[in-house]
Amino acid sequence: MDELQNLLDQLRQFVAERDWQQFHDPKNLAMLLASEAGELLAEYRWVPNHQADAASRDEARRARILSEIGDVGIALLLLCERIGADPVAAMRAKLEINRTRYPADMVRGKSDRPPLK
Amino acid sequence: MDELQNLLDQLRQFVAERDWQQFHDPKNLAMLLASEAGELLAEYRWVPNHQADAASRDEARRARILSEIGDVGIALLLLCERIGADPVAAMRAKLEINRTRYPADMVRGKSDRPPLK
Amino acid sequence: MDELQNLLDQLRQFVAERDWQQFHDPKNLAMLLASEAGELLAEYRWVPNHQADAASRDEARRARILSEIGDVGIALLLLCERIGADPVAAMRAKLEINRTRYPADMVRGKSDRPPLK
Amino acid sequence: MDELQNLLDQLRQFVAERDWQQFHDPKNLAMLLASEAGELLAEYRWVPNHQADAASRDEARRARILSEIGDVGIALLLLCERIGADPVAAMRAKLEINRTRYPADMVRGKSDRPPLK
Repeated sequence: MDELQNLLDQLRQFVAERDWQQFHDPKNLAMLLASEAGELLAEYRWVPNHQADAASRDEARRARILSEIGDVGIALLLLCERIGADPVAAMRAKLEINRTRYPADMVRGKSDRPPLK
Repeated sequence: MDELQNLLDQLRQFVAERDWQQFHDPKNLAMLLASEAGELLAEYRWVPNHQADAASRDEARRARILSEIGDVGIALLLLCERIGADPVAAMRAKLEINRTRYPADMVRGKSDRPPLK
Repeated sequence: MDELQNLLDQLRQFVAERDWQQFHDPKNLAMLLASEAGELLAEYRWVPNHQADAASRDEARRARILSEIGDVGIALLLLCERIGADPVAAMRAKLEINRTRYPADMVRGKSDRPPLK
Repeated sequence: MDELQNLLDQLRQFVAERDWQQFHDPKNLAMLLASEAGELLAEYRWVPNHQADAASRDEARRARILSEIGDVGIALLLLCERIGADPVAAMRAKLEINRTRYPADMVRGKSDRPPLK
């Protein structure tokens, strides 16, 4: 069986055993996701760009980063599960949009675009 | 081939074709992830809890939510790729920790714990 | 003297005594702000809308909320200080824009607008 | 009158004229705050640390940054208003805690502390 599917099954069981479905409406899960993303962000806030790769290899920091990545991923999967969305399909669809939105020849080596609105 | 692995390969190629690796250090990717999680959050900020499931089925809103889920997932995969982390392994490890941290018999039906510190 | 100005002076001194200006470029301060906003968010993630006012009066939770509000406010002031922005003027200007963008007669009692882009 | 108090009065009137108090419970306002902080974050995500001060002076970007600062500040004030908190007092109290938590002689010129838990 697909390992992502297997993880989803385990997550579903974890939540059911604790009777937490009642708290896991999509609004609350979007909050969980954003707050966990904020904790991951906190790991890098004082690290300058040019040291960010090295900092990610530091043993103690790496353990914290992996823990936060786990939290963010779990929150994302719980939200997808709740609203009946396929996360991989959603990513693939967005990648297709991004291919059109950012033609390689126009954006190569550039990062000066404002946030898309 | 595993579909997550396939998506990762496509993402890697998308970034390489645009010469964007130079902007994708872990610090910037953690910022991308958090800002995309903030956009997903924005979709639910005026939706009351008891309407959040229904709102997630509204056609126009659902399209925006799936688009943001795609963005969040892509940012998470790009970060994992950059630091050499396996997202599914990170989630599995965190789920194990959560099993110990929240024994089913102690937390069943309860949500009143403060954010873990 | 204005109490906000007085606080700004104290913040400036706090940072200077620790020689932290070097870490407080606007990028890092925007990260600080977003991660602190994430911690504040975490206080409400399992609280349903209809209990959010009462939860904000609970003594232990209130202490944590005020602590996070302090963190968010300090991060915002540090960013404003660094880039030479007047936070109150920025809020006043945005309020004026919002008056035009959301005419009272058109939006009264409605929250169903999508996030502005 | 104090200019912050004056702004608060205007915000209160803005919300009342639109009958938006019903949407502005503390949970929703914490979400507003975090999503606006995410938009501010987005302005800096591709800017390297050493260019962040200069980028904050670029005219077009500066206008967007000030607009987001206005949004974040307004969200923070609305939340404080709703729960009856004094934002300046909250910041002053947190600054006092930070003075004790980070003695100048121990942390001078250092940023390598993990996020406080």
